[in-house]
Amino acid sequence: MSFQIIPVQLSQNSYPIYVGENILRDRNLLSSHIHGHQVLIVTQENIANYYLPTLQHTLADFQCHTHFLPEGEQAKSLNEWQKILETLLQQGHERNTTLIALGGGAVGDVTGFAAACYQRGVNYLQIPTTLLAQADSAVGGKTAINHPLGKNMIGAFYQPQCVISDVSLLSTLPKREIASGMAEVIKHSLIGDADFFVWLEKNISSLLTGDVTLLLKSVAHSAQMKATIISQDEREQGIRSLLNLGHTFGHAFETAGAFQGLLHGEAVALGMVMAAELSCRLGWISDKDKKRIKQLLCQCELLRTTLQYPSASEILKLMKRDKKVKAGKLNLILLKKIGEAVKESNMPEEMIVSVIDTVLQTL
Amino acid sequence: MSFQIIPVQLSQNSYPIYVGENILRDRNLLSSHIHGHQVLIVTQENIANYYLPTLQHTLADFQCHTHFLPEGEQAKSLNEWQKILETLLQQGHERNTTLIALGGGAVGDVTGFAAACYQRGVNYLQIPTTLLAQADSAVGGKTAINHPLGKNMIGAFYQPQCVISDVSLLSTLPKREIASGMAEVIKHSLIGDADFFVWLEKNISSLLTGDVTLLLKSVAHSAQMKATIISQDEREQGIRSLLNLGHTFGHAFETAGAFQGLLHGEAVALGMVMAAELSCRLGWISDKDKKRIKQLLCQCELLRTTLQYPSASEILKLMKRDKKVKAGKLNLILLKKIGEAVKESNMPEEMIVSVIDTVLQTL
Repeated sequence: MSFQIIPVQLSQNSYPIYVGENILRDRNLLSSHIHGHQVLIVTQENIANYYLPTLQHTLADFQCHTHFLPEGEQAKSLNEWQKILETLLQQGHERNTTLIALGGGAVGDVTGFAAACYQRGVNYLQIPTTLLAQADSAVGGKTAINHPLGKNMIGAFYQPQCVISDVSLLSTLPKREIASGMAEVIKHSLIGDADFFVWLEKNISSLLTGDVTLLLKSVAHSAQMKATIISQDEREQGIRSLLNLGHTFGHAFETAGAFQGLLHGEAVALGMVMAAELSCRLGWISDKDKKRIKQLLCQCELLRTTLQYPSASEILKLMKRDKKVKAGKLNLILLKKIGEAVKESNMPEEMIVSVIDTVLQTL
Repeated sequence: MSFQIIPVQLSQNSYPIYVGENILRDRNLLSSHIHGHQVLIVTQENIANYYLPTLQHTLADFQCHTHFLPEGEQAKSLNEWQKILETLLQQGHERNTTLIALGGGAVGDVTGFAAACYQRGVNYLQIPTTLLAQADSAVGGKTAINHPLGKNMIGAFYQPQCVISDVSLLSTLPKREIASGMAEVIKHSLIGDADFFVWLEKNISSLLTGDVTLLLKSVAHSAQMKATIISQDEREQGIRSLLNLGHTFGHAFETAGAFQGLLHGEAVALGMVMAAELSCRLGWISDKDKKRIKQLLCQCELLRTTLQYPSASEILKLMKRDKKVKAGKLNLILLKKIGEAVKESNMPEEMIVSVIDTVLQTL
């Protein structure tokens, strides 16, 4: 049990992110963030098989219920969100109950949103079990569920009591899931830290084989970068939108496939290649840097070449349903250089379509 | 067009309540609180028949859609909330859209909760059309929907951009609805202003016949009292809970009847008589004051004597599912005297049952 603490400083509801090894067993640490006597652990069966007994043992002093979600992005449906609320009501959970999200991004998103809405808001803890969730989605209080008409369209900004990122939990993660998480780690380097990007290029092979020390550094560095941004702009009215690099493209691919086939990190990787291509055409990043970005994502095997992608115009149509659309105009996050992102809202649609086409044809 | 402004001062998201006559026609006022070009008016048919054309005319400069909810408390179902979100998605509403709740408490509650959740939160305006909503529910940012297992169990604290309380709209309100709103006005006097209670005793007949000047004073005074409390305790961690006088009893009666038969104000009135009875048994308020309270509520015809009420023990069971339950203990708001309320969490259950019984048998 050893960890570092990364503070997320907000005007209200500041909270710590703990990053370390074997923190799941730390009874004092977890208990200190649970204020009532009731707890509802929300998780999925595959994760529960590995880690639920440990967590239940750590929380032996509390009245603990467990709620199971289906695997994958299905967990983020309106129906599953409703079922969590029903469990809380049926088990008589009171306003001072605590929800614990034990799982990946989908589990964290729907659990956080259930916590935001149950009795107008109860406490919750994030215990992310994937690299993607530890490095990105569990940090920052964005909670949401999907709607058939768009991903993350229903949700809330709602901050947890703390985030417990135990990198020991990553040891059971399939390689494809590690890679998916690396997409968000790489994203953080691209938008704000060129040195970190170079470090990732150098260490990518060891990271992908699950080197715990390197993964710990990646998670801590990513969480720290994200925490700094969120402290400045909790509700995405400015700088926080830079974290959407690759996501406007990526969400459209996810929606097109009805959230199937592509992992979130794979969709974001595809989106980042497109953002890099567009940034290169604008003369902002060099052809060489564009290739470095694609190369690093390729090494992670994030760019799925065998899928049947929708047409570029179909993707554009879906992009225009994005939350970041304003007065019909797309807001895209592009790269001025590796380590510096900007928001751009005046890209001609033909150019966007052409970029999508080019990237898909040269995957 | 004339109005007074009551500020709701919060650490974040302060906003004004406008109370006056014919404000619905004030184009400049309404426009100043709408930041994008899109608007979704959420309303019910009976209200729309009277006031939708006026509002649409006032908002002629915006891209305006209208969404209709069913009548009554049915509007606050999960299903109806979902339909509002679907309308927003289908009509392509962007993150800077504005929702407008044109209706009573139910319309305001579900519309506010839809605004809280659409794209993680968009702006909304409250235009309450009932006395109950103007004097109480539209103020303070409590939004919610009902669940078969409990009233208001799913929701959020989410503040509007402004509240527009146009007392001219009350002229079309049925007498029973005016009385229902008076229950909340009386509640405000009981918890914090004995002089206002005396004023209500003196003017109750004229108020019930719809005297606009007197209604305006009631609405403004109630809104002011509530705003002062909310400024001190937005999320009901302390003093705000006093506003629940009569509500723990009342909600149980509403839930027992599956939100049918009793109007909200009628349920709250019943609850206030019970709170007064209990306060009297504790030796806090005099028998005379207990009778004054019941007398005033009787004059409003709020105490429905012909209904088939559930048993006291059934009501107690439902009360224990209330949001204000902590470690299994009921939190009741009682009266130290007329004009002074306190929270009390150690009432023996037998005493509560006995009080419910007595009140129901002597209605």
